[in-house]
Amino acid sequence: MNQAIGYTAEELTPGMSASFSKTITDADISMFADVSGDHNAIHLDEAYAASTPFRGRIAHGMLSAGFISAALANQLPGSGTVYLGQTLSFRAPVRPGDTVVTTVTVKSVLVEKRRVVMETVCRVGDVVVIDGEATVLTPKRVAAKPAA
Amino acid sequence: MNQAIGYTAEELTPGMSASFSKTITDADISMFADVSGDHNAIHLDEAYAASTPFRGRIAHGMLSAGFISAALANQLPGSGTVYLGQTLSFRAPVRPGDTVVTTVTVKSVLVEKRRVVMETVCRVGDVVVIDGEATVLTPKRVAAKPAA
Repeated sequence: MNQAIGYTAEELTPGMSASFSKTITDADISMFADVSGDHNAIHLDEAYAASTPFRGRIAHGMLSAGFISAALANQLPGSGTVYLGQTLSFRAPVRPGDTVVTTVTVKSVLVEKRRVVMETVCRVGDVVVIDGEATVLTPKRVAAKPAA
Repeated sequence: MNQAIGYTAEELTPGMSASFSKTITDADISMFADVSGDHNAIHLDEAYAASTPFRGRIAHGMLSAGFISAALANQLPGSGTVYLGQTLSFRAPVRPGDTVVTTVTVKSVLVEKRRVVMETVCRVGDVVVIDGEATVLTPKRVAAKPAA
């Protein structure tokens, strides 16, 4: 839970970055299958998955994409951020037990519209598993703060 | 679980469509918060959320995006589909109790590369809550089927 206000557009500059790390468990994959409705065998059935080009079970791509949401909402820009859009390229599979490190980096800031484009990359070790861009609306500063 | 092979590129034509419907519960939102790590108060804390422009709790955008993954993997193209990319525009909030209807429609097919672009739209009633496009690799036909 994070009720403090995150970074406003004025406080963000290109290059600012934050990372979030999470290890994907079998329980995570089962839970994601239940909440999304995606019960595809490639995620859940080891015998089937072993017979595919992936040679074993893989996590749902959208599960790792959820980590981007977490990094944006929890860290940068942080609480009060409104998610406007996301592009995702799924570049490599993520397997149960893998630790996904998600890094979000400010790419451009449109202060007057409070709009920020963030580069969003998920890695397992040195391998980029997802890359893309998020577009977000940054929080409004509501409380006491010098105006200029 | 769906181990049958889905549609191959040859079997898909622009305009083919499938839909998947899911009602978002409080339990879904809590589970998604746990698996993604996104415990932002806007999703979980009614008192805080009521004080924001959303005037109440909203579901994670990536939770509804998971329904796109489900529609692609379970229905069209179906099992064996490899997710290559997705664009998402989050157009309107989804609230606990809302029924999200996700429709995926074939937009273009590149048979020789097995690559298909799908239009992906999530609606609550008449309101588009997410739109975008998926790029997928369709399954290879492995078993007996007339070659031409």
